[in-house]
Amino acid sequence: MLDLDVDAAALTAALVDVESVSGNEARLADLVEAALRAYPNLTIERDGNVVVARTELGRDERVVLAGHLDTVPTADNVPSRWDGDLLYGCGTSDMKSGVAVMLRVAHLVGRGELDPRVDLTWILYDCEEVEASRNGLARLARTRPEALAADLAIVLEGTDGDIEGGCQGTLRVAVRLVGVRAHSARSWLGTNAIHLAAPVLARLASYQPRVVDVDGLTYHEGLNAVGISGGIAGNVIPDECVVTVNYRFAPDRSEEDALAHVRDVFPDFDVELTDTSPGARPGLDQPVAAEFVAAVGGVPRAKLGWTDVARFGPLGIPAVNFGPGDPNLAHKPEENVARQKVLDGEAALVRFLS
Amino acid sequence: MLDLDVDAAALTAALVDVESVSGNEARLADLVEAALRAYPNLTIERDGNVVVARTELGRDERVVLAGHLDTVPTADNVPSRWDGDLLYGCGTSDMKSGVAVMLRVAHLVGRGELDPRVDLTWILYDCEEVEASRNGLARLARTRPEALAADLAIVLEGTDGDIEGGCQGTLRVAVRLVGVRAHSARSWLGTNAIHLAAPVLARLASYQPRVVDVDGLTYHEGLNAVGISGGIAGNVIPDECVVTVNYRFAPDRSEEDALAHVRDVFPDFDVELTDTSPGARPGLDQPVAAEFVAAVGGVPRAKLGWTDVARFGPLGIPAVNFGPGDPNLAHKPEENVARQKVLDGEAALVRFLS
Repeated sequence: MLDLDVDAAALTAALVDVESVSGNEARLADLVEAALRAYPNLTIERDGNVVVARTELGRDERVVLAGHLDTVPTADNVPSRWDGDLLYGCGTSDMKSGVAVMLRVAHLVGRGELDPRVDLTWILYDCEEVEASRNGLARLARTRPEALAADLAIVLEGTDGDIEGGCQGTLRVAVRLVGVRAHSARSWLGTNAIHLAAPVLARLASYQPRVVDVDGLTYHEGLNAVGISGGIAGNVIPDECVVTVNYRFAPDRSEEDALAHVRDVFPDFDVELTDTSPGARPGLDQPVAAEFVAAVGGVPRAKLGWTDVARFGPLGIPAVNFGPGDPNLAHKPEENVARQKVLDGEAALVRFLS
Repeated sequence: MLDLDVDAAALTAALVDVESVSGNEARLADLVEAALRAYPNLTIERDGNVVVARTELGRDERVVLAGHLDTVPTADNVPSRWDGDLLYGCGTSDMKSGVAVMLRVAHLVGRGELDPRVDLTWILYDCEEVEASRNGLARLARTRPEALAADLAIVLEGTDGDIEGGCQGTLRVAVRLVGVRAHSARSWLGTNAIHLAAPVLARLASYQPRVVDVDGLTYHEGLNAVGISGGIAGNVIPDECVVTVNYRFAPDRSEEDALAHVRDVFPDFDVELTDTSPGARPGLDQPVAAEFVAAVGGVPRAKLGWTDVARFGPLGIPAVNFGPGDPNLAHKPEENVARQKVLDGEAALVRFLS
């Protein structure tokens, strides 16, 4: 049985001690579900290894608190151990400290010690650390998007206690150059597909990426070759060369707009979309978000990498990352979290909700 | 026992029937050596699976006849079989028909039926169809270059009965672009090595290769990317991109001159030589070569691919390819040679030497 009546740092340790490498979250999900079912003022749903809890207080606004239960494979770092004020162990930073903060808020609300100004939805999900097709939040967004409905989503992935708003979208295309194969001793009989890539690379090299303000945060875009391959043998004029281009786009652009832009950059080339993920607006111009920023303090910044906050983007829900973990320690054997950061995270959320 | 007192086409069939895939030439080399030792006016040397035979007639000039004994792996095409006037089997074209012509000339000289106007050296060698480090002719050129000494070398690789003079040199360089690795969501922190390849490809695309007359034959050069690789992952700005460039150069340039030229094309890039092979001049402006051309008839053309004639280039020996096989049939299961081509090859050499 999970005891939520301890401080968030102690709860982090208890969560770390239940190993939950991606695909093996059932036991932890069971414990979380059982703990939340103890509070009659929360409605609980279980969907695979996803646990959803909700208040139904009739507030004008709703805020989602979301976090994943899984970790990367352990590295002789379970169970957790304290070293002074640092808690070491797999998931301390990524992101059982965030889950602990979520559960502490549920405990306070469940016990009537906190009367939140907004309705709340907790989403605790599986398989964030593996391929996107297994991601529990993505599955929920696909099968039951109403479960994600809110005016703001707070994903408690580690940000070292800062607010990182929204996230960039990302897409990849294959720019394919086709030539005519020939022996390199008779190169004039062929057309060199690698040479045909010269203007593609030149356009990328001279491309001026946008710097865009979205809802008060600044996003730096990027359009880059992340791969190139061509060549058959040392004596053959190659008939194919493929440049893989990654476009990181600000969340004012939809995936469709972003692809159209890439096609505009290469109007005379064969451009094939290979994968795409939407961005998410930070929504920091909304009142509920402004109140959250005021409660946390500090200056929010744009999220640059792609995270699960983007699951909310296509649903039109502003989303931010805010978690006590240090993202630079994620996935490392020496992963740890500072006790005070976890306590501060809980305190900031309580301030916001009070 | 190999019977050389048959026509060159029948002798080709006998040679094909002694399987001699690269590395397995010993039995055929034994048979060839024994057959040549029957003629007291030839001096015979055996060096591994290389057989060298020489006349010592005191002529002013010497001509080398060279051919390899090995074949690519068989493909259910040994023993040979006649279909009308076509002889099918592994090595019929590449190049036991050429070896048969060489041995027929040795037989005629050995029996005193042909009194050659020049001294002759026959070089029959192993491992032409595999990596250059095992090539028997290359080994002889390295360890006993005096064995190759001549005023003209005729390599009886298949040319469909035409004369193909000299050969282009070939070298490969790696042009290495070095950047700074970064996450593609923060691309401005990195330097994209693939983008740095843009001017390399642009120079290759706009490069104007030389067309050069050497000793009366026309050589078309070529400078081409034959490979490009770069990229670490779909979300990483790559810190390395390597373009492999192949320069095919006319035999008026040495390997050193050719490399210097490539460095001139890319003066501001990291250019590393990865492999190099010299060209060979055709020497068709020499009297002995002119007599050979007259005897064969037709119009000689430049050899475009790289062949073993180039083993003679660094020794200053003009060299030509002249063989009865059709090079387009080499290495194919349906490899074959026309009876008349083989007989014509022998007749042309006899005309030249008479």
